[in-house]
Amino acid sequence: MTIKGVFVWDDTDWLSDPEDRFGFRATWKVKRVLAKEESVFQEVAVIETEGFGKTLVLDGVVQTTEKDGFIYNEMIMHVPLATHPQPADVCIVGGGDGGAAQEAVKYSSVQAVDMVEIDRKVVEVSQRHLPEVAGFGEPDPRIRFVYEDGTAFIKERENAYDVIAIDSSDPVGPAAVLFEKPFYQDAKRALKDDGILVCQSESPVFHPEVLKRVHHTLRELFPVVRTYLAAIPTYPGGVWSFTLASLRHDPLEADGQRLVTAGNRYVNHDILDGCFRLPQYVKELLS
Amino acid sequence: MTIKGVFVWDDTDWLSDPEDRFGFRATWKVKRVLAKEESVFQEVAVIETEGFGKTLVLDGVVQTTEKDGFIYNEMIMHVPLATHPQPADVCIVGGGDGGAAQEAVKYSSVQAVDMVEIDRKVVEVSQRHLPEVAGFGEPDPRIRFVYEDGTAFIKERENAYDVIAIDSSDPVGPAAVLFEKPFYQDAKRALKDDGILVCQSESPVFHPEVLKRVHHTLRELFPVVRTYLAAIPTYPGGVWSFTLASLRHDPLEADGQRLVTAGNRYVNHDILDGCFRLPQYVKELLS
Repeated sequence: MTIKGVFVWDDTDWLSDPEDRFGFRATWKVKRVLAKEESVFQEVAVIETEGFGKTLVLDGVVQTTEKDGFIYNEMIMHVPLATHPQPADVCIVGGGDGGAAQEAVKYSSVQAVDMVEIDRKVVEVSQRHLPEVAGFGEPDPRIRFVYEDGTAFIKERENAYDVIAIDSSDPVGPAAVLFEKPFYQDAKRALKDDGILVCQSESPVFHPEVLKRVHHTLRELFPVVRTYLAAIPTYPGGVWSFTLASLRHDPLEADGQRLVTAGNRYVNHDILDGCFRLPQYVKELLS
Repeated sequence: MTIKGVFVWDDTDWLSDPEDRFGFRATWKVKRVLAKEESVFQEVAVIETEGFGKTLVLDGVVQTTEKDGFIYNEMIMHVPLATHPQPADVCIVGGGDGGAAQEAVKYSSVQAVDMVEIDRKVVEVSQRHLPEVAGFGEPDPRIRFVYEDGTAFIKERENAYDVIAIDSSDPVGPAAVLFEKPFYQDAKRALKDDGILVCQSESPVFHPEVLKRVHHTLRELFPVVRTYLAAIPTYPGGVWSFTLASLRHDPLEADGQRLVTAGNRYVNHDILDGCFRLPQYVKELLS
């Protein structure tokens, strides 16, 4: 069976991101392929790797793993949810693996999570083959799955959300528009007047120009913009950035007491504060 | 030319750590081999990679690179040097690439740096082929190179150093003793009575048992033990730990004003504080 991203070397199957424009590849030994399906949009695979367990792979690009998916999911949701004083309405654009939504419903103030994923197949395959990330059993009833283009969905909303999280894949192909100003303008309008937008803003090592552009574009639109980092072994370079853009609440002034920590494996009060403390090369990139 | 760690795939040379017990390999595209020499201890190579520039490789294991070597070197030296009120005498065990010593002499209070590297070849090759890490031109006259076994050297010293940094390779082969209690006891005796020991304590993701053991062994010997993290793209998993053990001064109580920041690309005041804020899974590992 041919799977994008999997190659044979020394009689062994290896999974490797196609991302090699810097000549750097993260490579995982494959134990077995659990699922391979074709959607209208992409090849959706779940591959069991030796070191990181089950891994969601879209068109050959590793998205999340059983071993460290929690880091990304906790970081993209807890930071905005602990910053907002009373988050009730949440929208997640992308994030079909379901991990971010699982974190959102840990907050009792949250009443509804609109999970807008363009590719239904990603949700189905994740729920069936990757419950360690997507969640076991029936999803929380507050989560509403919407299989629609995220940009079109957001464009139609106004004053609707306390928190919008852009849990997208890399800015190539269909996800590219999620990194552009017109979409951020629509997202701003879809937020309530003290709402918070958060997005994954790529690697400061391998995609510094993306992070820089996202940060500065959001600064043109939002009074409070804060970039924060997490150490995610799965992603090339191991360090990943998120950028939070807020209409009123500043994470650096939030008291952090609203942070839910029960069951967390990455985010705690120390991280909520420490993640905004950036290395000099990242500060200089954003200045 | 056969070089440890380099393999051919798809007609291209790739450099890859042999470390694959978790089935995870970081892999770099090779541009050319700049040096390959055999010492009594190991194969010492400098390989130019496409994305990370010149790379020091010992017996096939990547040690430091032109692109991100500064992160490790700044983190292992600035944290203890900014914690100690007046560091004058510094000893570096290992660290033959010279990068840590370059950081140490940024502190005007530092009068002498004993660089104890067992393998002279590592120093020579680094100075000749990797001056971006080892330093251009003549080394600072405060740096004294000692080509000796670090354990024997430290055993003979008493009340000699303000800061000892264990800048070792992984705990396999000759470096293994540098992670053991007898060596830490000798290092404690080699410190002045308010001295600080710091060591690289491996990846919390790939070698959690090493980090845990180092941390707890040092706790048996020192009143103040603090583990801190840095995001180093070159090392597998991208997140690396250091553990500081101190006879008196606590980095969490230091005012940080002594930190030298001029020329730093990673360590600034935010990092000096933020690096001790550990993710939950690391806290639980160390508790």
